[in-house]
Amino acid sequence: MEGGDHLAHERNKAEFNVDDMKIVWAGSRHAFEVSNRMSRLVASDPVFEKSNRAIMTRKELFKNTLRKSVHAWKLITELPLSDDESLMLRHFMDQPGFLDLHWRMFVPAIKGQGTEEQKQKWLPLANKMKIIGCYAQTELGHGSNVQGLETTATFDPQTDQFILHSPSQTSSKWWPGGLGKVSTHAVIYARLITDGKDHGVHGFIVQLRNMDDHSPLPGITIGDIGVKFGNGAYNSMDNGFLMFDKFCIPRDQMLMRLSKVTREGKYVPSDVPRQLMYGTMVSVRQTIVSNASIAMARAVCIATRYSAVRRQFGSQNGGIETQVIDYKTQQNRLFPLLASAYAFRFVGEWLKWLYTDVTQRLEASDFATLPEAHACTAGLKSMTTSATSDGIEECRKLCGGHGYLWCSGLPELFAVYVPACTYEGDNVVLQLQVARFLMKTVSQLGSGKAPTGTTAYMGRAKHLLQCRSSIRKAEDWLNPAMVLEAFEARALRMAVSCANNLSKFENQEQGFSELLADLVEAAIAHCQLIVVSKFIVKLEGEIKGKGVKNQLKNLCYIYALHLIHKHLGDFLTTNSITSEQASLANHQLRSLYSQVRPNAVALVDAFDYTDHYLGSVLGRYDGNVYPKLFEEALKDPLNDTVVPDGYHEYIRPLIKQHLRSARL
Amino acid sequence: MEGGDHLAHERNKAEFNVDDMKIVWAGSRHAFEVSNRMSRLVASDPVFEKSNRAIMTRKELFKNTLRKSVHAWKLITELPLSDDESLMLRHFMDQPGFLDLHWRMFVPAIKGQGTEEQKQKWLPLANKMKIIGCYAQTELGHGSNVQGLETTATFDPQTDQFILHSPSQTSSKWWPGGLGKVSTHAVIYARLITDGKDHGVHGFIVQLRNMDDHSPLPGITIGDIGVKFGNGAYNSMDNGFLMFDKFCIPRDQMLMRLSKVTREGKYVPSDVPRQLMYGTMVSVRQTIVSNASIAMARAVCIATRYSAVRRQFGSQNGGIETQVIDYKTQQNRLFPLLASAYAFRFVGEWLKWLYTDVTQRLEASDFATLPEAHACTAGLKSMTTSATSDGIEECRKLCGGHGYLWCSGLPELFAVYVPACTYEGDNVVLQLQVARFLMKTVSQLGSGKAPTGTTAYMGRAKHLLQCRSSIRKAEDWLNPAMVLEAFEARALRMAVSCANNLSKFENQEQGFSELLADLVEAAIAHCQLIVVSKFIVKLEGEIKGKGVKNQLKNLCYIYALHLIHKHLGDFLTTNSITSEQASLANHQLRSLYSQVRPNAVALVDAFDYTDHYLGSVLGRYDGNVYPKLFEEALKDPLNDTVVPDGYHEYIRPLIKQHLRSARL
Repeated sequence: MEGGDHLAHERNKAEFNVDDMKIVWAGSRHAFEVSNRMSRLVASDPVFEKSNRAIMTRKELFKNTLRKSVHAWKLITELPLSDDESLMLRHFMDQPGFLDLHWRMFVPAIKGQGTEEQKQKWLPLANKMKIIGCYAQTELGHGSNVQGLETTATFDPQTDQFILHSPSQTSSKWWPGGLGKVSTHAVIYARLITDGKDHGVHGFIVQLRNMDDHSPLPGITIGDIGVKFGNGAYNSMDNGFLMFDKFCIPRDQMLMRLSKVTREGKYVPSDVPRQLMYGTMVSVRQTIVSNASIAMARAVCIATRYSAVRRQFGSQNGGIETQVIDYKTQQNRLFPLLASAYAFRFVGEWLKWLYTDVTQRLEASDFATLPEAHACTAGLKSMTTSATSDGIEECRKLCGGHGYLWCSGLPELFAVYVPACTYEGDNVVLQLQVARFLMKTVSQLGSGKAPTGTTAYMGRAKHLLQCRSSIRKAEDWLNPAMVLEAFEARALRMAVSCANNLSKFENQEQGFSELLADLVEAAIAHCQLIVVSKFIVKLEGEIKGKGVKNQLKNLCYIYALHLIHKHLGDFLTTNSITSEQASLANHQLRSLYSQVRPNAVALVDAFDYTDHYLGSVLGRYDGNVYPKLFEEALKDPLNDTVVPDGYHEYIRPLIKQHLRSARL
Repeated sequence: MEGGDHLAHERNKAEFNVDDMKIVWAGSRHAFEVSNRMSRLVASDPVFEKSNRAIMTRKELFKNTLRKSVHAWKLITELPLSDDESLMLRHFMDQPGFLDLHWRMFVPAIKGQGTEEQKQKWLPLANKMKIIGCYAQTELGHGSNVQGLETTATFDPQTDQFILHSPSQTSSKWWPGGLGKVSTHAVIYARLITDGKDHGVHGFIVQLRNMDDHSPLPGITIGDIGVKFGNGAYNSMDNGFLMFDKFCIPRDQMLMRLSKVTREGKYVPSDVPRQLMYGTMVSVRQTIVSNASIAMARAVCIATRYSAVRRQFGSQNGGIETQVIDYKTQQNRLFPLLASAYAFRFVGEWLKWLYTDVTQRLEASDFATLPEAHACTAGLKSMTTSATSDGIEECRKLCGGHGYLWCSGLPELFAVYVPACTYEGDNVVLQLQVARFLMKTVSQLGSGKAPTGTTAYMGRAKHLLQCRSSIRKAEDWLNPAMVLEAFEARALRMAVSCANNLSKFENQEQGFSELLADLVEAAIAHCQLIVVSKFIVKLEGEIKGKGVKNQLKNLCYIYALHLIHKHLGDFLTTNSITSEQASLANHQLRSLYSQVRPNAVALVDAFDYTDHYLGSVLGRYDGNVYPKLFEEALKDPLNDTVVPDGYHEYIRPLIKQHLRSARL
């Protein structure tokens, strides 16, 4: 390694086997190997170079994304790569583009909502990318409220076609990725109207562009919605707008698995249960939770390594300064985020299991667990993405001034990550769905219908409403049962308190709307309990490798105890713990920080991120930060010349006091 | 107004006189008039157009900033404008550039640290901008710790010169704005060395570039540090790096007001008190607090107007949807930020008074109040800039998906604002300074030395340590004395608790370092008390205009009560209030939200921001959001052609399955 490993002294301190931790983080040896292989394949391929994104114009960036995407597809088909591998390859490519929407939204929509006939017709085209598809639901004036979409699809029995139409400016499709410039096709959501009757929102497969010259078909207006947050980030993607002017498609392009329109124009719901649709949502949101852990881990990896490199204050007699990672203020902000990355990883893993479980039950027409699974994934999507957005920005601040440089990787990571708080369900709207489910669960307590899954603890309401925490000394906060009970008591009592307050309103909907803010907090408390409990479950299982489990234990309790500190008002007002117990938790937390400190760099090494993927000078594996900051600076086009463009027009007239000769 | 005022119905609801509120916000009729006139002057001048920043390359953006800066200077000198006016003109230009550093840092440094002779030589040049200066303190490896700077200025008695030298890569000056490409001169901070002895960091006036061709002088290496956060933001600024290779300057270019070096090389401290330097810091940080209120107000203005325009859910039978500002979840996030904007405005106003007071005392050699004033401004700088950064991002999220568009103005505002958390003192480091001062104050309680200024309440320690809040009903939370007592009790008890814990350590410094996180929280509690108390003081004074005071009262209590909710753990563990009283506070808060709701749009109109300054399609005064989003989208270069550049090289080979012909 050029210049050696500046963090070797940190790595030598680690009290656990990093290679074993890598397997735990990846989920299995196989998953580790695929991820490891693909990340290095991408890193070593010059086409996937990404350090120059910030100095590209939008057009260059977009074209560069086309190049990378097509190159990736070429590798996938020619090597060839398995599905697992190609997923990881696209992930490590780390540049949002049309492939994401085609594979994650367009193809699954056809698979989930198409009839066998439709699948046979469209999937082979999509699977070979003979067509490129996107997913167009959101409209300019309608985001979260899907039922409020305005685009219409009116059946015309004369021609056996649907007439797609955008009746207003706010009905324009707006935001779909891949729509603006690339996609040839789309799944479009529109209100189905037959014989003057509105049947609500349905999906349709629509060809957008001429397959020979890529021009939009007559009746379709289409374009890009413009620049988004950040220098690079989602500006590589052609998020688009789309308006229909009485555009006709054949009847068989309505996705007809759940309901169909006959030749005569009759609307016929199928006997396929609508609940199946929720299965897809569970799957999408589970992926988002996994991605939250990945993004959080990335930010934490950068901030941890740079905190070990950076020194500030504390020198004795002009000696070397203190590594900033040794300051308690730094640990107090950084280590809970490190713990969150691991916590979200394991809850994401568990959600994967949940999705499999739900799918199997759905296939056996068992819908009993679906509402709980749906609420749980919605809440976890919301909670983990919010925490990750905030965490990335906190990591940026933890890097001091240099975190503000684009080449720190953190501005880009923040800009590309934050939409996760809004897409696939606005985070506040999702917590309200969780809250509704919790209120329903509370109302059924004592009815004989036992709460299941992640709400099972509510079945112990009688105990949890009156128990007092038996924590007596700081070490008790390492007792899983005691920690869980505190979180369960808090979550249950907040839910019950909301339910009691709701019952004071004559009109339940009005009460709900009045108490929205409290309901969101109760939902968050429930979600935090889920994450803590799944981390504890993980620790109860077998975990291989020297010292690995011990590290995870520390992180689990840091995660739990920092939440107690952060939401202390909740825990105290519900009497789930006392002020003295809270003070013991803080004491224990500080001791856990000291235990994590020597392992911090190794704990982020376990994510196995390449320097290419991290994309951060501050987070470099070798810690050789300062010379590389210079190298990056010198690449800026402003440094092409010593005297800048604009000197003769502006600077010189100013200092020579000849403003009249300035080109203004 | 084109298309009429879509928010007229909101404005008609207001229960107060907006024009009067504008005066209160501006601070005086004169201040309002200057601000109003300058903002409109900038908005109407095509040179100051800024909506195209996101699609400029860095070089174009930089050159555009040179043009705007020189144009601004031309207006200032030719109209001419007063100092007040030119400050506002530059402010509304809203594009970071070299003028900021020249006027805010370079000139004040010479004024504050130069001798009369030096001022007579340099100020006329700087005041006419015959030279352009910047302020170079921060180094690549040294930010917060000024005493750790490495650059040396060694006196050479043979030549009567200082030899400036950068002994390592980390000693390179790094970050100074205006340094990279524009400045001809700089105030450079370096370790003064005479006769082998290190006298610590001192300031020097240094010419950097040849005045005839702008090339760096021999011995100076200089350049731009590269791309920063955001599409526009600080990328308009040439933050730079600088290395000296034994570069010589005449002895009289050391800033010699506080200490000097004689012809013989003798180091002589002057009798000018060093405390004078703190006066400058108070001044700079006071400006930062004012700017926090301006930035917060800007984000809140955008989010409030768009929340009144945007509708989502809640339609009855297909009717019109509910304005999102009517949702309690939205109010619960938005209105505390609106209240914060006003709260920071008034504490900023008070800090202006404090600065005048400190200055007068310094001139009379009265240094007694300086430490308290210094701690108070440091803490308020930290607290208000952190809250504002978070608040801007929260406002972006409150705008849903469209907040992610660059044209919403919020990504740019965030990217340009967040460095305020780091520059002029890292926010955590500053709170630790406050904490040190608080610990000292606590240790002196009972010594007969009464705490003064913002710590005066600590003089009532005996009462505040044992009092119990007498809040009995929700309305009691509108009683200023009761609110203040709760905040005072919390702040004092947290400080005393830290002091008690500190005293358990044998080594005070070790204790301090172990308890850093608690100390920061105690400092924040103290700062929040200051903001609440200054808001209350403001309400006690005369406030003109129909309904104006009543609105400010609502905002003051929203500010205070939302803090109680947010930091409930603090209030409960210190027994400053009970759980029941906290619940009454929440109840009162909800009622205050309802009272603010009809006034919300008018309350942000009172900031008197032009659409030019806001730079947000979502925050437009007329609320005509959706057609304008389309107009903005169509300006993106990606929309220059219907078929995008890259189609023939990449998209076509992909869908035609001729990957070999792709240009990869």
